[in-house]
Amino acid sequence: MPDPRFYRRAGPFSLADLAGRCGARLAPGADADRVIKDVGTIDTATAGDIVYFADPSYVVALAASQCGACVTTAELAAHVSRCPVLLAADPRGAYAEIAALFYPETSPTVAQSGNIASDAVLAADAVIAPGAVIGAGAAIGARTVIGANAVIGPGVVIGHDCRIGANTTLSYCLVGNRVILHPGVQIGQDGFGFVPTPGGHRKVPQLGRVLIRDDVEIGANSAVDRGVAGDTVIGAGTKIDNLVQIAHNVEIGARCIIVSQAGIAGSCKIGDGVVVGGQVGLADHVTVGDGAQIAAKTGVMRDIGPGEVVMGYPARPIRQFWREIAALSRLTRRDK
Amino acid sequence: MPDPRFYRRAGPFSLADLAGRCGARLAPGADADRVIKDVGTIDTATAGDIVYFADPSYVVALAASQCGACVTTAELAAHVSRCPVLLAADPRGAYAEIAALFYPETSPTVAQSGNIASDAVLAADAVIAPGAVIGAGAAIGARTVIGANAVIGPGVVIGHDCRIGANTTLSYCLVGNRVILHPGVQIGQDGFGFVPTPGGHRKVPQLGRVLIRDDVEIGANSAVDRGVAGDTVIGAGTKIDNLVQIAHNVEIGARCIIVSQAGIAGSCKIGDGVVVGGQVGLADHVTVGDGAQIAAKTGVMRDIGPGEVVMGYPARPIRQFWREIAALSRLTRRDK
Amino acid sequence: MPDPRFYRRAGPFSLADLAGRCGARLAPGADADRVIKDVGTIDTATAGDIVYFADPSYVVALAASQCGACVTTAELAAHVSRCPVLLAADPRGAYAEIAALFYPETSPTVAQSGNIASDAVLAADAVIAPGAVIGAGAAIGARTVIGANAVIGPGVVIGHDCRIGANTTLSYCLVGNRVILHPGVQIGQDGFGFVPTPGGHRKVPQLGRVLIRDDVEIGANSAVDRGVAGDTVIGAGTKIDNLVQIAHNVEIGARCIIVSQAGIAGSCKIGDGVVVGGQVGLADHVTVGDGAQIAAKTGVMRDIGPGEVVMGYPARPIRQFWREIAALSRLTRRDK
Repeated sequence: MPDPRFYRRAGPFSLADLAGRCGARLAPGADADRVIKDVGTIDTATAGDIVYFADPSYVVALAASQCGACVTTAELAAHVSRCPVLLAADPRGAYAEIAALFYPETSPTVAQSGNIASDAVLAADAVIAPGAVIGAGAAIGARTVIGANAVIGPGVVIGHDCRIGANTTLSYCLVGNRVILHPGVQIGQDGFGFVPTPGGHRKVPQLGRVLIRDDVEIGANSAVDRGVAGDTVIGAGTKIDNLVQIAHNVEIGARCIIVSQAGIAGSCKIGDGVVVGGQVGLADHVTVGDGAQIAAKTGVMRDIGPGEVVMGYPARPIRQFWREIAALSRLTRRDK
Repeated sequence: MPDPRFYRRAGPFSLADLAGRCGARLAPGADADRVIKDVGTIDTATAGDIVYFADPSYVVALAASQCGACVTTAELAAHVSRCPVLLAADPRGAYAEIAALFYPETSPTVAQSGNIASDAVLAADAVIAPGAVIGAGAAIGARTVIGANAVIGPGVVIGHDCRIGANTTLSYCLVGNRVILHPGVQIGQDGFGFVPTPGGHRKVPQLGRVLIRDDVEIGANSAVDRGVAGDTVIGAGTKIDNLVQIAHNVEIGARCIIVSQAGIAGSCKIGDGVVVGGQVGLADHVTVGDGAQIAAKTGVMRDIGPGEVVMGYPARPIRQFWREIAALSRLTRRDK
Repeated sequence: MPDPRFYRRAGPFSLADLAGRCGARLAPGADADRVIKDVGTIDTATAGDIVYFADPSYVVALAASQCGACVTTAELAAHVSRCPVLLAADPRGAYAEIAALFYPETSPTVAQSGNIASDAVLAADAVIAPGAVIGAGAAIGARTVIGANAVIGPGVVIGHDCRIGANTTLSYCLVGNRVILHPGVQIGQDGFGFVPTPGGHRKVPQLGRVLIRDDVEIGANSAVDRGVAGDTVIGAGTKIDNLVQIAHNVEIGARCIIVSQAGIAGSCKIGDGVVVGGQVGLADHVTVGDGAQIAAKTGVMRDIGPGEVVMGYPARPIRQFWREIAALSRLTRRDK
């Protein structure tokens, strides 16, 4: 369930109502009056939640899911016995429509007139620099410094002894203790999630958060998107350099080093103590094992095991990379 | 002609006057008293405009141009018959000087004392968050939300139902409806345009705009420069991720996807429905056809046809890229 | 010595006191009561400064240093005769602790209540846009424009005729004349410097500055970190594009061109008139000679000589790069 500090839910809706509003139809025998209270994911849904089922590899997980309904294709519907079904040619697109019904876009950052919302909770010795804007219900811990012209969104929680740089924007996030965010960091904005439709790219509501653990440092002008469902997580003691991109639902372990201009695409899972070099790119859904090292400018399109050291595009073991570079060089000598 | 909402023009100047101020000289027979009212480009100039002619491939276009004068080299001057000529060793540099005469730098963003200029036009239900600054003559449409500490420059027009993120800066731009700009986006600043001179890099006045069509989304900390002359254009429904660079005079079609940390250099033309992967770079003046797909980290230095799928640096057909990767790998095995 | 405009020094401390606080021990015969007033580097230390010595290649420089004490390993201590010694398994880590003792973190940006500090020195014709925050002791020169919601930190000095963009943050820096910083630029934040320790990455205090010479231009959302000790320097007339990363202690010469999304790692030294292409990456401590040209997307891991033109990853002479690309292409044809 999306965090109610950040998201206000509409509904509930009957299953028939949802079908009508998202262009799906009730599967034969589905209970039209079933009350649906929220959107969810197959893994974490409870009895009032509707989920989508678009990938056959989730069939076992779906059988064990507590979800109250699911939207799927006519073809996949044969695999669903445990809950009522909505049928849609594009279950992801239908789910995006449903999620937008439950969470219509609001403008929480602006529901206030002064710079500091009257119900924000500031520690007595927190320091708020000139021009900083603190949203409704936000909480700032002891000795934390909020830089000039920083914007802290509604509901954001920041621990003690943090330094939040000037001109940063934090929204939909929970920040630990002793965290340093340098100027221009942007945390918690929508991830880059769209479903292609005949009418163009349909935006998928982004209903998760960003969790920043203790002792994290994030460099100037870096960006961390919040999760679609679930959270984007930066593990304790991890240090991130300037101009780094962390996409939605990325999970980074403890004590990693992420060098400048690296980009980590959606849903990557990075272990503890990983070093990601400058200008590295990781494709989405890649897993990187503990202690792995990824040389600068490497492009990673497959999982990296614990302790592996890789380089190049596509990423390969670093010795293999250098062997290939040498072989290529010799080749031109032979050519002459 | 530069948009008078953004640029205030000085002049007019006589041709002799311009020659004297930019270190050029009148060609034999040129009318010293010809009144020049503006700078222009060969394609779009009208009778009062001066253009530069530095590339012989424009000789046909120049013959058809409506321009009132041109600055060119002694060598190229032989090809000009239709208008009076100024001679300069470096026509681009002389033109930059002339453009700076017509458009001396002003500081429009600061010609106001309060946060919201008295002549800004705000829809009744537009929402302006704390700390946002709205410049003279700017217009904000219905239900549009301007985030905290955003800076909307003079003359900027934003349509209805837009979400403009916190800590963004918009200048010299016209924004459509339902546009989402995430925090830290910078729109409309000077492009990166210089003419080398013995005294250093001479800045070329950037006199264009940025046009952002309906339903565009631009991710956190991305940057879109305005045109030199003419406009930088982001087509309807195009979605741009975080930390993307869009240089001056780039034209992007409708419904494209531009993934994080991609960079599009000056004057590129990108068709409709193009997918540009993360960390891709396009050299300047490249054309990309409709529906082309450019894999992550690719470096594009040549035109890409419609529907082409390319990868690598330099960009090549994706199958060829993978064949080469395989061949290189085999080579090291043979080498052993 | 760190610039007192930016850093307030604690101490002095006796050598024994420092040893106790940083987990080091006095070497046999070291003067426990020696008064240490500051941290320094081997090259620039004076009699009251303590330095670290962790790299044998500095043994000659150390012999000539004016430092008052040094922290080193038991193994390297044999090479030190000219000053008292502290012994530590990890001299860099111990030095980081000592530096943090002398320069405990303060929050200078917030020691003020209004937007413009009472002791800031503004030229009569400087223009400060709405929302800009000017810190204590900052100085703004004639005709310089500070954009809306920009944040100028304490002690920052900006020359005349500069344009400082909206939503920029400047700290720990001295800026020349006629400098243009585009919106979202972040100057002077901590560099990315950590010492690995069993308890995690220990932050190394960053005690230097950023020096931006006359006629520099820096593009939107670029970041320039300040030096660890000593300064990060951007030479006169150098033009930097959008989203560029300049790490701590980088020194860039005059009249360089650094294209968008390039990244220059720590302590690189770049000569005059160098062209760095888009998305180029330089590893740390690389030296680039005058007039060198580095093609877009190149990854540089070794020094580049004056006038060299390189391309590829790793960087190689541009002709060699293209020969290799051609050979690789032929190889796949042979393979068929």
